[in-house]
Amino acid sequence: MSMKWTSVLMIQLMCYFSSGSCGKVVVLPMDYSHWMNVKTILDELVHRGHEVTVLTSSISVHIDSSKSSNIKFEACPTSLNKNSLEVFFKKMINEWIYDFPKYSLWTYYSVMQNFLKEYSDIMETQCRDIVLNKKLMTKLQESRFDVLLADAVVPCGELLAELLNIPFVYTLRFLPGNTHEKYSGGLPVPPSYVPVVMSELTDQMTFVDRVKNMLFVLFFDFWFQVFDEKWNHFYSEVLGRPTTLHETMGKADIWLLRSYWDLEFPRPFLPNFVFVGGLQCKPAKPLPKEMEDFVQSSEENGVVVFSLGSMVSNLTEERANVIASALAQIPQKVLWRYDGKKPDTLGSNTRLYKWIPQNDLLGHPKTKAFITHGGANGVYEAIHHGIPMVGIPLFGDQPDNIVHMKTKGAAVRLDFATMSTTDLLNALETVINDPFYKENAMRLSRIHHDQPVKPLDQAVFWIEFVMRHKGAKHLRPAVHDLTWFQYHSLDVIGFMLVCVATVIFITTRCCLICCQKYTKTGKEKKRD
Amino acid sequence: MSMKWTSVLMIQLMCYFSSGSCGKVVVLPMDYSHWMNVKTILDELVHRGHEVTVLTSSISVHIDSSKSSNIKFEACPTSLNKNSLEVFFKKMINEWIYDFPKYSLWTYYSVMQNFLKEYSDIMETQCRDIVLNKKLMTKLQESRFDVLLADAVVPCGELLAELLNIPFVYTLRFLPGNTHEKYSGGLPVPPSYVPVVMSELTDQMTFVDRVKNMLFVLFFDFWFQVFDEKWNHFYSEVLGRPTTLHETMGKADIWLLRSYWDLEFPRPFLPNFVFVGGLQCKPAKPLPKEMEDFVQSSEENGVVVFSLGSMVSNLTEERANVIASALAQIPQKVLWRYDGKKPDTLGSNTRLYKWIPQNDLLGHPKTKAFITHGGANGVYEAIHHGIPMVGIPLFGDQPDNIVHMKTKGAAVRLDFATMSTTDLLNALETVINDPFYKENAMRLSRIHHDQPVKPLDQAVFWIEFVMRHKGAKHLRPAVHDLTWFQYHSLDVIGFMLVCVATVIFITTRCCLICCQKYTKTGKEKKRD
Repeated sequence: MSMKWTSVLMIQLMCYFSSGSCGKVVVLPMDYSHWMNVKTILDELVHRGHEVTVLTSSISVHIDSSKSSNIKFEACPTSLNKNSLEVFFKKMINEWIYDFPKYSLWTYYSVMQNFLKEYSDIMETQCRDIVLNKKLMTKLQESRFDVLLADAVVPCGELLAELLNIPFVYTLRFLPGNTHEKYSGGLPVPPSYVPVVMSELTDQMTFVDRVKNMLFVLFFDFWFQVFDEKWNHFYSEVLGRPTTLHETMGKADIWLLRSYWDLEFPRPFLPNFVFVGGLQCKPAKPLPKEMEDFVQSSEENGVVVFSLGSMVSNLTEERANVIASALAQIPQKVLWRYDGKKPDTLGSNTRLYKWIPQNDLLGHPKTKAFITHGGANGVYEAIHHGIPMVGIPLFGDQPDNIVHMKTKGAAVRLDFATMSTTDLLNALETVINDPFYKENAMRLSRIHHDQPVKPLDQAVFWIEFVMRHKGAKHLRPAVHDLTWFQYHSLDVIGFMLVCVATVIFITTRCCLICCQKYTKTGKEKKRD
Repeated sequence: MSMKWTSVLMIQLMCYFSSGSCGKVVVLPMDYSHWMNVKTILDELVHRGHEVTVLTSSISVHIDSSKSSNIKFEACPTSLNKNSLEVFFKKMINEWIYDFPKYSLWTYYSVMQNFLKEYSDIMETQCRDIVLNKKLMTKLQESRFDVLLADAVVPCGELLAELLNIPFVYTLRFLPGNTHEKYSGGLPVPPSYVPVVMSELTDQMTFVDRVKNMLFVLFFDFWFQVFDEKWNHFYSEVLGRPTTLHETMGKADIWLLRSYWDLEFPRPFLPNFVFVGGLQCKPAKPLPKEMEDFVQSSEENGVVVFSLGSMVSNLTEERANVIASALAQIPQKVLWRYDGKKPDTLGSNTRLYKWIPQNDLLGHPKTKAFITHGGANGVYEAIHHGIPMVGIPLFGDQPDNIVHMKTKGAAVRLDFATMSTTDLLNALETVINDPFYKENAMRLSRIHHDQPVKPLDQAVFWIEFVMRHKGAKHLRPAVHDLTWFQYHSLDVIGFMLVCVATVIFITTRCCLICCQKYTKTGKEKKRD
């Protein structure tokens, strides 16, 4: 038996002999930064003695069993090509970054629609390969898991939980237009002050903004209806009864939203929606020697940390030079996570790294600013350590995250495709030298740290709660039992209007008859 | 210097020399059970080293400075008669209990309206006597409090906070129809699945129930408009600028709702609404010797605890005999909190007490059932200890609380005015002997105990948060900046409908013109 499995066994034994409340968690994760985030939860669950099994497949990019001691991995065979997910994302991101800004609104949405379809196809194939694999399903059923943890951004987890007949918990950063939170989770999303995800609006909307937000709501509702249709058929086929994606997703016991009121604008939510944004944040660890020496060499000027996240490792030569040229002009030292060709304009103050310990760097006392694509993980690490940002959003929720940070006074936003060297230079000088940005970043950091329960503990608490109580039915709102017109009280309003109209009609009619009779009697009397 | 003040000083000194984060809290409490609840928070605040000052007046009934060591009391002079509050409540409760069941709907609401007016007048006089008392206000201003804690059920706290220019926190069990939570706090209350307070409905509503709920919403909205109008004038007069009660209440940083999902049905809420139901609950302490002996004498049959709360101490002779007769027929011993004439039918198994240590009795292993009027404090103590209930609701939120407990399977409901001896006997036998009720009471108890943060800690955390950050502005939803038609997007929907209509009109018009031209040209061609 390897050291790894001995260790798992030891923890399990400790658990059974101590609290006796350890459970079995099965995880259907999403890849890339989503995995990095959920892994923090899984490590904590393992640390608390639970048995964690992650379902993975050959198309996984970042889900690496060799790096995850004490977590079990169950490789699920798939008919997809090994690199299909990576190829898809590379193609999508490149088009999103470089071509989308040139597109007309119509082309943009048509291309987006195609991407969604392609992604949905990949996910459906992967899902089919799991739920229709009898051997695998028997093995999973026999494992008698207590809870399933899934990312709500892609379907399948809820279907698997339904087939395994176990409760499930979602983890979620966002869904375009908040469609699934709204229709599956019952979350109220009033378009008058809740800007929908990917609208790039704030909670302070003018009339025009509110019209835009409403159009976004309608657009995403329509967009996802097409997407959902296919999954409704698939779920009905697998479960052998007519059902929908929303109905199945609506059975989630808890939605762990990877956000909090430091990043998010205050909005209504439901008792089974728990905000755990920044759960992966932790105090900074010491840097590797070479990096620490470089950071210290910045003296009182400090350093700037620069990363465009785990999905973008290189850029076009032109964009890289524009950026490098700006970085070369600041007195700070720069640590740039970059895997492409070294830009010609790279200054001596800038060092390129294939990978950086981002959290440790952002928590370093010498760090003055963070140039970020606005991925939620990075933004949260900056909030955690109180570092002002220059946001260069690329895709997904990144523009929204940066809009939020800009509105809260902790970031300056730039446009990746059009920004010049001067733009970047000005933005950097602003967030570093204007105390407004540092003060706001520190204010957000104080809000982030000052919660009754730490986000990671909150996430783990609710997963354990679902295991302890076999669900969290007491948190399930009755909105799930209503149709959309019942939810909006349209039947009640309609009925009441009919009643009022009937009363008015009958009263008017009676008055008219009385008047006619009175007039008639009057005339007859006069005649007599 | 008395022992009491020496003790306050010691705690304050300890605080300043240790964490240095102690603050000054001023409290404008509501009387009766509300005070008993809020006092638990105040005791904990004092225990944590904060300085707590309670504003009280000669009309206070239960707010007794002699019983509250370490809390400061500031007596506010008032022009009201000493007993005006007590006399008002006695009259209202007697009419509610004995006369309301005989009233027609119209009389009921007209009498209720008069009570609300009378109560509002008492409260306004008390409020005027505080905010227009220059000497008192100067003293309060000079005290430099960090936060004001008020009960949202009566106005005044928010006005005082505005005048003292300090943030404020509400504590609240309910407001009829949820009107103030909705219009002042911005809380969404969808009438399709959120039964409004005092409707006695559940979250599982039929079409007729939903119509009823909507009518309740409209009724309470109308009712409170009349109530609010007077306060709007008063607030505008005192602040010297046009304002409203809702606008002033809307500035609350945190709403501590004395409820949780063990008692409440799941519903939407906002980030600055915190659920702290049952914060006063604690493990049972040993009973007084005589009481313990009586309880032990019940042997395996156990005991039944009976109380109609702090506002009802005696009953009519007829009702008391109906009750006593039922109690005499059960094998359990009964401890009845009762201050009236000893009923003739009182059995030897029943003992009357002017006061009972309710929480300690409910937490006693021999307790089998709780006969309660359904006050939130008592219901929460029963939930805490997992005791099934026979609910005899009298007024206020009590019928709702009992409806909730009945729906969740932990109580049987009886009607006070009409119940017979057999009804009470059957109800008691049911909750004691049918395991369904005990199981559900225990399930609710498990839910109550299994929260990430204890309700009392949660309440204290948010009061301290407001003191630390001088408010909680990051939790304030943008709904406060919208008018009601903007909130419901009526302007946006209207605008979009006009746009659609214009497009349809222009398109139709163009088509018609084209058709006419085409027909004309065709005819001309034919003619040629």
